[in-house]
Amino acid sequence: MNVVLIGAANLATNLAKELIKKKFNIIEIYSRSLKSAQELAAITNAKATNEIETISTNADLYIFSVKDSVLSDLIDKLPHNNAIWLHTAGSIPADVLKNKVDKYGVIYPLQTFSKNKSVDFNNIPIFVEGNNSDIESIIYSFAQKLSSKVYKLSSEKRKYIHLSAVFACNFTNHMYTIANNILEQEGIPFDVLLPLIDETALKVHSISPIDAQTGPAVRYDKNVIEKQLNLIEDTNTKEIYKLISKNIHKINNKK
Amino acid sequence: MNVVLIGAANLATNLAKELIKKKFNIIEIYSRSLKSAQELAAITNAKATNEIETISTNADLYIFSVKDSVLSDLIDKLPHNNAIWLHTAGSIPADVLKNKVDKYGVIYPLQTFSKNKSVDFNNIPIFVEGNNSDIESIIYSFAQKLSSKVYKLSSEKRKYIHLSAVFACNFTNHMYTIANNILEQEGIPFDVLLPLIDETALKVHSISPIDAQTGPAVRYDKNVIEKQLNLIEDTNTKEIYKLISKNIHKINNKK
Repeated sequence: MNVVLIGAANLATNLAKELIKKKFNIIEIYSRSLKSAQELAAITNAKATNEIETISTNADLYIFSVKDSVLSDLIDKLPHNNAIWLHTAGSIPADVLKNKVDKYGVIYPLQTFSKNKSVDFNNIPIFVEGNNSDIESIIYSFAQKLSSKVYKLSSEKRKYIHLSAVFACNFTNHMYTIANNILEQEGIPFDVLLPLIDETALKVHSISPIDAQTGPAVRYDKNVIEKQLNLIEDTNTKEIYKLISKNIHKINNKK
Repeated sequence: MNVVLIGAANLATNLAKELIKKKFNIIEIYSRSLKSAQELAAITNAKATNEIETISTNADLYIFSVKDSVLSDLIDKLPHNNAIWLHTAGSIPADVLKNKVDKYGVIYPLQTFSKNKSVDFNNIPIFVEGNNSDIESIIYSFAQKLSSKVYKLSSEKRKYIHLSAVFACNFTNHMYTIANNILEQEGIPFDVLLPLIDETALKVHSISPIDAQTGPAVRYDKNVIEKQLNLIEDTNTKEIYKLISKNIHKINNKK
């Protein structure tokens, strides 16, 4: 199967490496930045381009793995062909592709990717969708070459998975950032928090998050909460502390 | 070394098990709930009591591992003796013990504990403090029997570690709870998020949290953010989403 990849950022890079590992042939990689396209093309033995209009038309699969904000523009500019076109965006419906091609769908790997950090693709849940059941089966089989955890899922449901991922990954990481800033200000290295961060993640493998909840907010221990609020100088951080504490108390006392 | 343990909750339970493993002798365990004291005493070969006034006076070490709100009351009621008294609270200064005994301090293990989930104590950072340098050295040596990561730290600094732990553990866990609730409503099992949760925690072992930040809030992608806000029904959750997104954008564009 010959693949063209539109995009060379975090997800595209990890996807390209995995495709090569699984013996797919990447014939061309597009990026707005020719340098990014060339860097990824070099390790995947592909052609690099920053001109979407002139891209190879003889691939079997075109995968758009770009920022949401540029996706529909790139779809418009890619010359029409008979291949299957896929995108990888959590919050964008499959039918953003429907006016361009007859065979299209989505492949959404639920993971956070960095260019220079490899992940075990086989363990990543991949949610797929196709514009009809035949195409969906093809996309499903394709995704199964990448991961052992492939699920068929509608665009409507995928939005909610993306939303949950924003909380479980992006917002969680911001909690780490705030913790880091508090420690930094006191000259304490962030490393001391790593065993706690790991255990917090590990716990929800065996206990539901609501049952794993600990801390002063569960019983709304006013004494601790007020002392801690006094330690926080930044107004936004104070607001975040207040709002999350209130919500923990509310949700954990409803259960 | 003979130890008396005041408390039988999550931390006390894990501490007691570790002390036994390291050949300490626990002679008595107090809990407000006699049943809890008895359960822990049974597995540590100790006496159980729910009467603080009548507790054994011949131990070398008394460790208070109870909720902040009852700590000073229990300190008041425990009969005076010549042993070292320690507490395990992050946000309470060591000198809450100063009117009762001459030798006192703090042993603060930075971890989240559950009664029925064992943790690798050797890997847990433990912060110690003593009322003078001799006592502090004794407490330091004692803590080194439990963990390879022992640090001397003042009460003043310990407060900030506790605050950072509230963000990195308690608030992070609440992000998991919200993610779980979003998925539950759509009939999607929470398990699909586990590889993402694990990778988010693993990432900050090698990249600083601010550099690990991804998601629509980094560039404040209004289109995605507004679509996601429309998916959230609960008012508090909406507020949390808005506030954290704003703060991610603010902090990540200052770096």
